[in-house]
Amino acid sequence: MLDLHGACIIGQSGGPTAVINASIYGAICAALESENITKVLGASHGIVGVLKDDLYYLNIEEEEELRLLLNTPSSELGSCRYKMADPDTDDTDYKRILEVFQKYDVRFFFYNGGNDSMDTCEKISRYMSKVGYDCNVIGIPKTIDNDLAITDHCPGYGSAAKYIATTCMEVFKDTQVYDTGSITVIEIMGRHAGWLTAASALAGYYGAGPDLIYLPEVDFDMDKFISDVSELYKANNNVLVAVSEGIHDKNGVFISEYGANKSSKDAFGHTQLGGLAAILASAIKEKTGAKVRGIELSLLQRCASHLASKTDLDEAVLAGRMAVEAAAAGITGQMVAFERSNIDGKYHCNAKLIPLKSVANLEKKVPLEWINESKNGVTSDFIDYALPLIQGEPKRVLENSLPRFARLKKRPVPPLPKEIK
Amino acid sequence: MLDLHGACIIGQSGGPTAVINASIYGAICAALESENITKVLGASHGIVGVLKDDLYYLNIEEEEELRLLLNTPSSELGSCRYKMADPDTDDTDYKRILEVFQKYDVRFFFYNGGNDSMDTCEKISRYMSKVGYDCNVIGIPKTIDNDLAITDHCPGYGSAAKYIATTCMEVFKDTQVYDTGSITVIEIMGRHAGWLTAASALAGYYGAGPDLIYLPEVDFDMDKFISDVSELYKANNNVLVAVSEGIHDKNGVFISEYGANKSSKDAFGHTQLGGLAAILASAIKEKTGAKVRGIELSLLQRCASHLASKTDLDEAVLAGRMAVEAAAAGITGQMVAFERSNIDGKYHCNAKLIPLKSVANLEKKVPLEWINESKNGVTSDFIDYALPLIQGEPKRVLENSLPRFARLKKRPVPPLPKEIK
Repeated sequence: MLDLHGACIIGQSGGPTAVINASIYGAICAALESENITKVLGASHGIVGVLKDDLYYLNIEEEEELRLLLNTPSSELGSCRYKMADPDTDDTDYKRILEVFQKYDVRFFFYNGGNDSMDTCEKISRYMSKVGYDCNVIGIPKTIDNDLAITDHCPGYGSAAKYIATTCMEVFKDTQVYDTGSITVIEIMGRHAGWLTAASALAGYYGAGPDLIYLPEVDFDMDKFISDVSELYKANNNVLVAVSEGIHDKNGVFISEYGANKSSKDAFGHTQLGGLAAILASAIKEKTGAKVRGIELSLLQRCASHLASKTDLDEAVLAGRMAVEAAAAGITGQMVAFERSNIDGKYHCNAKLIPLKSVANLEKKVPLEWINESKNGVTSDFIDYALPLIQGEPKRVLENSLPRFARLKKRPVPPLPKEIK
Repeated sequence: MLDLHGACIIGQSGGPTAVINASIYGAICAALESENITKVLGASHGIVGVLKDDLYYLNIEEEEELRLLLNTPSSELGSCRYKMADPDTDDTDYKRILEVFQKYDVRFFFYNGGNDSMDTCEKISRYMSKVGYDCNVIGIPKTIDNDLAITDHCPGYGSAAKYIATTCMEVFKDTQVYDTGSITVIEIMGRHAGWLTAASALAGYYGAGPDLIYLPEVDFDMDKFISDVSELYKANNNVLVAVSEGIHDKNGVFISEYGANKSSKDAFGHTQLGGLAAILASAIKEKTGAKVRGIELSLLQRCASHLASKTDLDEAVLAGRMAVEAAAAGITGQMVAFERSNIDGKYHCNAKLIPLKSVANLEKKVPLEWINESKNGVTSDFIDYALPLIQGEPKRVLENSLPRFARLKKRPVPPLPKEIK
């Protein structure tokens, strides 16, 4: 463990969440407090900003605006989806990163993202160590998908889960109003892991949620699906279904690709884009004749900071803060992770550090034993797992009853004078 | 004005809103307080419930559950979309309604809905008066569409507008994160009137909203649209567009129908359903090559009670209460309407009564002078109009951080003994 002193760079990567900026807030606060950290720099659009030397000062922002990061969804520093080569095969990008790190005497690097970002983080950490440049690299987890390995859960999931559960409850009420009956399909994010779609079961737990839930952890059978839905439609007149965007048949073909018929054009000759919800809605309509509707929660589920979970928000701050404190204390090559414990029957979350290489590129899925026998719902184990994560209402900052988001100045870091380079 | 005594029936009709049950709550409270009203009955699924003699007691519900109607979206009594014939051409339904009214000595009828429902209300009122059956009929307005004539605005609109504005702000933030650029199209309800879509401008007013807004009040030109979007995409890299589901070309053809190519089938041979947002997204993708996304706010915008406006909620209660008080005082054939005044520069809403026949079947649209010259945005007059309507946060009732909706017993009204019939 080296007692490093120098600047830090904080970057964000991958899809945003409702609380990803809370982690940045935690990291900035801890960095400003740290005696080892001389300057707090933000990377514009993650690692792309480092490669382009596109950085800005985070230590000269107003305290009040920084605090509003807790109220601001999306990735305030800018994000990217840039895949880094392995440094052992192609070190071009890493040489450039080293150059920028040296230029600003960057000794701490924090990367806030999902499994791809932890892969980036791990590679940078490995490269810096290989070339003997002292820089402590720590990953700050985030993902609405909740699919990072080892950690009990990820910052961002609890808020997305709460949005999904609340919205499903409201949509459930809406679909019950007419005497004429209806079938509604809600499409929820999660290409490989069903954590988000499973969160719709929280709504059902309170008596106002989907009747059927399909996760990508098990193969999807269209005939079985139509029969599940038809049966319930006959019995209840109204049916609400939640499906993960990632459901696939036994051959691994995504059901969403069933609609990708390149010859379907509209009146303009444009190829039609059709979502999974629309595909399933039309399949059901054909078989049942019912009034059907497909709803895609789309970006709404990952940016709805107005329904953030206080538990999630606090844990996101904690993750950012712990990353910086660990790096300042000389630790590198790790990611902040969560461990759950029950103290007097109450949920408790402990942060710990795990090696980046143990999480990079892995995916954690919903355990098969948490999926019901009919493969169209989840068990109470899932409810027990997810319910604590959505608890608590953060204080929202409003202006004329609309959210007041942070307005950062993002003053660019000017090029250093030649002689210092 | 007759000093009537007897039972009342309350019914809901048309599409639900986030606060429609608040009007029912106001009506029930006033009915329970009234000395003229002997029994408070709810019609299951609006006028269909009356025709089927499917009624339940509302005066034996627990007070606490009734209060939770303020926290419950959708039409708790059940809704319908039943079109009544003109009583002068076909009085079958009216005879049946009279029979049910006589059976339970119903002397007050309250119908909570939009312009179709006010038409139903007007016809019932006219028929009862024609046959000499004393029954005071009052309409309680509701509609997220805000398209009822004469009234300054409608209960339900403020909350939907607030949901749309908040969501657009969050989506705006989300669409800004990547360095690679994107174009996002948000489809908002409103077949003929653009009030809801215009509400997205409230987000832009706070610096985080759509760059372009298209309302159904003016003809939509696809070439102009593509050119508007392409230009902004070149200049800003990210573009957010809000469109009303009801936009149509100069021949009156809905743009949403451009995609209704019956020959487009998916792999199952199902006809593809494609929303307007998807149609526009594919048109833009073809012309710009940009990353595009279509988002449909769908039912979410009309049931999001978690983002209700306190102003809207209070006014919804007021409308229900005033309807009952007016009927009990001997008034009939009217609808509750709102008038706005400014007292010391502050928004103030006064309720008044207007004849049902002056609103039935009419539609109020966004004034053309509130639409900008380029027909792709609204003026500050709209902001001044809409901003007061979204103000205030109602206290939400939660259970484990999820909404606690009303659970009414809805005890059915049993058939009366033969001799009383």
